Amino acid sequence: MNGAVDLPLGTSELSFQAAGDSRVRRSILPSGVRVLSEQVPGSRSVTVGFWVAVGSRDEQRAEAAHPATYGSTHFLEHLLFKGTATRTALDIAISFDAVGGEHNAMTAKEYTCYYAKVQDRELPMAVEVLADMFTSSLLDPDEFENERGVILEELSMAGDDPADVANERFFEAVLGEHPLGRPIGGSPEAIRLATRDAVWEHYRANYRPSDLVVTVAGAVDHDVLVAELERALTTSGWDLSVTDAPVERRSPGSSPLAVGRPLTVVERPNEQVNLLLGVPGLVATDERRSTMSVLNAIFGSGMSSRLFQQVRERRGLAYSVYSFAPAYSDAGLFGMYAGCAPAKAGNVAELMRAELERLAEHGVTADELARAGGQLAGASALALEDSDTRMSRLGRAELTLGEFVDLDEALRRIALVTEDDVRTLAADLAARPFSLVAVGAIDESAFRTAVDQAAPSIDVA
Amino acid sequence: MNGAVDLPLGTSELSFQAAGDSRVRRSILPSGVRVLSEQVPGSRSVTVGFWVAVGSRDEQRAEAAHPATYGSTHFLEHLLFKGTATRTALDIAISFDAVGGEHNAMTAKEYTCYYAKVQDRELPMAVEVLADMFTSSLLDPDEFENERGVILEELSMAGDDPADVANERFFEAVLGEHPLGRPIGGSPEAIRLATRDAVWEHYRANYRPSDLVVTVAGAVDHDVLVAELERALTTSGWDLSVTDAPVERRSPGSSPLAVGRPLTVVERPNEQVNLLLGVPGLVATDERRSTMSVLNAIFGSGMSSRLFQQVRERRGLAYSVYSFAPAYSDAGLFGMYAGCAPAKAGNVAELMRAELERLAEHGVTADELARAGGQLAGASALALEDSDTRMSRLGRAELTLGEFVDLDEALRRIALVTEDDVRTLAADLAARPFSLVAVGAIDESAFRTAVDQAAPSIDVA
Repeated sequence: MNGAVDLPLGTSELSFQAAGDSRVRRSILPSGVRVLSEQVPGSRSVTVGFWVAVGSRDEQRAEAAHPATYGSTHFLEHLLFKGTATRTALDIAISFDAVGGEHNAMTAKEYTCYYAKVQDRELPMAVEVLADMFTSSLLDPDEFENERGVILEELSMAGDDPADVANERFFEAVLGEHPLGRPIGGSPEAIRLATRDAVWEHYRANYRPSDLVVTVAGAVDHDVLVAELERALTTSGWDLSVTDAPVERRSPGSSPLAVGRPLTVVERPNEQVNLLLGVPGLVATDERRSTMSVLNAIFGSGMSSRLFQQVRERRGLAYSVYSFAPAYSDAGLFGMYAGCAPAKAGNVAELMRAELERLAEHGVTADELARAGGQLAGASALALEDSDTRMSRLGRAELTLGEFVDLDEALRRIALVTEDDVRTLAADLAARPFSLVAVGAIDESAFRTAVDQAAPSIDVA
Repeated sequence: MNGAVDLPLGTSELSFQAAGDSRVRRSILPSGVRVLSEQVPGSRSVTVGFWVAVGSRDEQRAEAAHPATYGSTHFLEHLLFKGTATRTALDIAISFDAVGGEHNAMTAKEYTCYYAKVQDRELPMAVEVLADMFTSSLLDPDEFENERGVILEELSMAGDDPADVANERFFEAVLGEHPLGRPIGGSPEAIRLATRDAVWEHYRANYRPSDLVVTVAGAVDHDVLVAELERALTTSGWDLSVTDAPVERRSPGSSPLAVGRPLTVVERPNEQVNLLLGVPGLVATDERRSTMSVLNAIFGSGMSSRLFQQVRERRGLAYSVYSFAPAYSDAGLFGMYAGCAPAKAGNVAELMRAELERLAEHGVTADELARAGGQLAGASALALEDSDTRMSRLGRAELTLGEFVDLDEALRRIALVTEDDVRTLAADLAARPFSLVAVGAIDESAFRTAVDQAAPSIDVA
């Protein structure tokens, strides 16, 4: 292979060697279920994920015909642990606890994933239980009411975490009315109003054979895996003759550059101000993604990064400070975070913005570029020691990218990034509309200068 | 080996095979530095830790001759990243960032550890830089002032995290005046008053050759490691002829059963109440430690555990609920945590206490006991796939336990635990003085019933 392999829906069997001697195989079953495995020599454990390409962004806004379904993706994720036709919630919990496995799920903006990490010999059990949860959950009405309380507590926990609050507001501020701007878990109001019927409909509509992607990494034999999965699905309540194409929920596109909200202040009696500053970023398939990785490494990842040096090392203004660049199918963000004292928050916001502008104007050094390459190579190699990371890489390849990129190819692309690429991207980002979010004991006046810079079209003279 | 090996100070060389085919070796260098390595076949990465058996509990209270040194252990930990005679802070950061390594430190109550995880070929670099930091940091006065600000922000961040606040208060409540009851980071007041001289003295007194323990796990050759470490230490400013015995800072003993504070309420305008309820537990070397592991697994670890089932699954009262049992040289705790709505906090506290009493009265089932064995075996096997876990196990063996226990031996001890052992330990714990800590929008009256139970000697009729 050349290190990158396309994953077309029309191809039922694919097999290739990836960097580091792992073997990747992909099968599309007659029912439309997609199965990807990565066998890693020497591995004694295995991580298995059941994915569906539906996330909070795919929920519907309220219309005349129906109420909003915000939060239903995450609500459903909880309910899949609450019992099937043949297993109670306790049975499911015991299956994994009894073998010391890790077992959980995550709802994201563009996907939901149920996963387990177990010792190699437990893979058949993990596949069977996850398949049962995925295909045959009952969504029992009593369990539904009980879980409503659990989810409200989960949202309250997030509401008490100032960094979580700032992060939710930041997505809203940068992306505005875009569906990716909404919080993943919905709001407490939406959860209080959620009905079992709406969540059931969401389950039936989105969890069909052609929507399911199973990815497994570690100690796995692909043929055995496929046989086990077929058996588990056959005994489920699923109609496996349904072979519709996967629902096309969205198509890759360019990020909307709608002007976000320049300033959001959430006043709270905290000791710190949680500060986020940023702009719309790149979509997941943008050809500049490798440049963004390099830019983010140099700018705000690690103790030697510019943000860390300027804000923490030289001035002692923050303990935690970094940048980040999440990417989705048709939008992305570039953000900078710092937690700092209220009296310093205006100053820190200006410093962070000035650092991005300095990068846009003067670019990076050859040394920084070389270091970023080493940093990304080493960190990736360490991360790929873990079967969790490989399982997720397969899911991302199938659901988001449409191609599998191995480590050698990823690093080859990184190595092609030039100083000029980074400077050009930084200039592009710095010219986009800035949004600033602050959560803490502070009011808007603290950010007059920062917002003045951030929204140059507004005359505040 | 029989699965457990003593680590006596008088023995300069030890070597044995551990479960799972790893090879453990230990050398005591002529200077008194102790080096332990675990070579794991097939590993491509390595984690290295530089340990010293001094933590926040070893700091001094204020006396006529000197001010309190609270927080100085953690302050020193920060300063070891800030430059040596031959490396600036940026040089240190670049060393690890340029190879994508993980690099950090942790200050605990009974130890401090500086560690790095890197690809195998970077081990010599990691040993050299960590040795330089450990032996030759300058504690530059300007850097000291800068870092004071960073640490104050770190404490503020923790102060804004209600679970962190509850946890600190819980240790104080259960352990009272015991040095283990103090917070690790000191207080903002202590950090504002800290002087470079006091931290320097702490450094000189506690970071001597005989205090240093180096543990390495993963892709490591012991002889090469020892040679690299010797070379790094020889070029440092250390006087390697100092071969005093390690400072005996504390001796294993039984946990003090001083009556803790029954009720601590920290009123905050949060959405949730963060609730901790517990009692003094077992010391790290207690022969009932395996019983405690089994008890904790059954009672509050995992989705099938009793606490999870009672509080979350059946009643939907919390999202996060679990138990924990930290153990130190001469004290320990057994605690239960839940985050819940203020209106339910009294009820949840009573439920958690009632569950412990039910365990004390009726014990566990044979099924639960068998499951706990499987849970601990599987979770340990998964954890030991990571060289971080093995590096920490070596440190704990040398600094806390005085013996290395491999996985087979640990599981043999677990398998010996009986239903009666668990019930007896639960009865012992349930009879100890309870402490309850609540952080949230609540006042003491909510816990009248729970505290009445928790402090039966107080007549509140």
